[in-house]
Amino acid sequence: MSIGDPLVAEKLGQVPELLKEHGFDAWLLFVRESHTVHDPCLDLVVGTNVTWPSAFLLTAAGDRVAIVGNLDKANLEAHGHYPEIIGYGEGIAEHLRRTLMRLGPRRIALDYSVNDPMADGLTHGQFLMLAGILEGTPFASRVESSERLVGTLRGRKSPAERARIRTACEVTVEIFARLTRRLRAGLTEKQVAALILEEMERIGDLGLAWDKEHCPAVFTGPDSAGAHAGPTDRPIEPGHVMNVDFGIMKEGYCSDLQRTWYFLRPAESDAPEAVRRGFDTIVEAIQEAARAVRPGRTGAEIDGVARGYITARGFPEYPHGLGHQIGRTAHDGGAGLFPRWERYGNLPDLPIEAGQCFTLEPRLPIEGHGIATCEEIVVVTDDGAEFLSEPQNELYLIPPR
Amino acid sequence: MSIGDPLVAEKLGQVPELLKEHGFDAWLLFVRESHTVHDPCLDLVVGTNVTWPSAFLLTAAGDRVAIVGNLDKANLEAHGHYPEIIGYGEGIAEHLRRTLMRLGPRRIALDYSVNDPMADGLTHGQFLMLAGILEGTPFASRVESSERLVGTLRGRKSPAERARIRTACEVTVEIFARLTRRLRAGLTEKQVAALILEEMERIGDLGLAWDKEHCPAVFTGPDSAGAHAGPTDRPIEPGHVMNVDFGIMKEGYCSDLQRTWYFLRPAESDAPEAVRRGFDTIVEAIQEAARAVRPGRTGAEIDGVARGYITARGFPEYPHGLGHQIGRTAHDGGAGLFPRWERYGNLPDLPIEAGQCFTLEPRLPIEGHGIATCEEIVVVTDDGAEFLSEPQNELYLIPPR
Repeated sequence: MSIGDPLVAEKLGQVPELLKEHGFDAWLLFVRESHTVHDPCLDLVVGTNVTWPSAFLLTAAGDRVAIVGNLDKANLEAHGHYPEIIGYGEGIAEHLRRTLMRLGPRRIALDYSVNDPMADGLTHGQFLMLAGILEGTPFASRVESSERLVGTLRGRKSPAERARIRTACEVTVEIFARLTRRLRAGLTEKQVAALILEEMERIGDLGLAWDKEHCPAVFTGPDSAGAHAGPTDRPIEPGHVMNVDFGIMKEGYCSDLQRTWYFLRPAESDAPEAVRRGFDTIVEAIQEAARAVRPGRTGAEIDGVARGYITARGFPEYPHGLGHQIGRTAHDGGAGLFPRWERYGNLPDLPIEAGQCFTLEPRLPIEGHGIATCEEIVVVTDDGAEFLSEPQNELYLIPPR
Repeated sequence: MSIGDPLVAEKLGQVPELLKEHGFDAWLLFVRESHTVHDPCLDLVVGTNVTWPSAFLLTAAGDRVAIVGNLDKANLEAHGHYPEIIGYGEGIAEHLRRTLMRLGPRRIALDYSVNDPMADGLTHGQFLMLAGILEGTPFASRVESSERLVGTLRGRKSPAERARIRTACEVTVEIFARLTRRLRAGLTEKQVAALILEEMERIGDLGLAWDKEHCPAVFTGPDSAGAHAGPTDRPIEPGHVMNVDFGIMKEGYCSDLQRTWYFLRPAESDAPEAVRRGFDTIVEAIQEAARAVRPGRTGAEIDGVARGYITARGFPEYPHGLGHQIGRTAHDGGAGLFPRWERYGNLPDLPIEAGQCFTLEPRLPIEGHGIATCEEIVVVTDDGAEFLSEPQNELYLIPPR
């Protein structure tokens, strides 16, 4: 009986068509010690790790061949995704050459990419090892980046994948709701993070979408670290805007959402006008951006919509992209809703495709109070976008004690 | 206040001397999205992850410069290991070129390696990106593999590192002892694995040393999967030899130990002669190998000692190396006690050095009963080796019900 994930089988089923679409005859993953140095494409089309140098060859004709060390063979067999598994004892080279000769691919996609980190699992040492193995064969000059292949395979989420992302979002929103009931001024960022993890534990069977060090990330008040940093001992004070960036992994798929709270001062029954205006600008920017999303547009255009909306209202622009794809990883690579900055490579200019799932996460500072930011997730449909997360439309108000 | 691991600070302190020893002026790590595509050298000298393309430059003169995306800066600062952190908004290229011009290294070690997976964290896409950034500068032709540098930095464990590995071993041996008290024929491999995880949970604050899928790995009776495969529904029967391969991570350091049990048949008070002889051969092979270890010998020599001991007694040779280094990862790279097989590259021929920690894990099949195997851990001393794990010298006998 197979212990393999049916969503890996589904992705494997999509590979031949996508290879044809991009004009490739085969896709080669070349990995080793993948528990530690992990090619993220393994999660898409292998579903487990290997120890010795290993090759996974998928062809446009539908062949699926794994060449792995003998010790890894039983595990691969148990997963049941590869009809042909070649085990080796002393070395992979001769087996890989022979398999390539038999399959005879002319254009071979290889798992590296300058632009897309999630299509860039091949290490440089493995690349050099492969070059050595292929030296003197016709295949040495037939390998090229699998960037576009991986972008479409990873990006176009099937209905089953979307359902897993939607579920991960629902659980996360539920955790935020439980948190809201326990919040009060005086708690530190670290204590808020602990409450979130406690509620997550209570629901059970969930992993974190990124490093525990800053998952959740909690930022309260003005002059907080801002992003990608761990919670501190800073206490929440009345008048603070607090935001949380948190994502879970459920059944191999991630959420990544942000929410914003305001802590009322003793005399207040609502947030000050400046806070309301900042928060509403974020909510509206997200809605504007979501309305602009459709297949064929580029991420740079969508980022420009939200960025322009925010700066037109007198707020500074957010110091990052509007949103990234999400799926098996929180930052799922491929086309992004990014500005045309050097660090984003060609990703802002790739056309958006139906089935891609994007975060929308603008932010802005509210002077004297903190950072307002929401992060939602949408899936691109044939003619627009649909929310997979239930958006935060109202600022969460926490009464004074 | 720094949240950084003191053992990262310790390793950073060793870098300048090791750079000089290998004739390098600087070491460059070039990474991105390292939560997902993880360069294992980050665990040694950074201690956290980054999102945007990031460079870590360490020089023989003692400079430590991090160039990271603005969003990652606060986290790096909190860790406190890098006195100079350059944050960037749009792109890293100009900052990296300018920093290299300022530091002026002639020979630069770069984090890739054909032979050593743990020194091979640079992806091929990142290598190409770096080549683009360095094009037209004198540094383009000054980069080379950091293989030997990383091998010594990772391999030579300080007293504090050895203490963490020893503690991880002690906890693992304790878990095995608790397991032994709960074992009985009739349990399945999966149930045995669940008992181990339950005891681990009870002790608390421990991670697994490799994928949960086969950590622990449990193999009972003849014709089991053998290695690197998950536990099955196969029940333990009287007369079975069962072995478990299990490792934990505690405070960032791993154990990786194997133990062997025999399940007595109703009339038996001891294991059959064939089982005893097989088990004793493993124990003796480990002791012989440990006695042979000393600085300056090669791993191939030590592997040959155990391999020869076992085949001289009429058993087939084990289908893998005798042992690998262990530390922050279960398979810690560098020199190994390996045979000269293609798949091990140059690792069997590297001279052993004091401070390296190796597993010793021969195995042999006992016909009709199962696989006998122990795995112990030794640290290389100035003139020999010392066990960090308390070796299994007696076969564990489980009485019939």
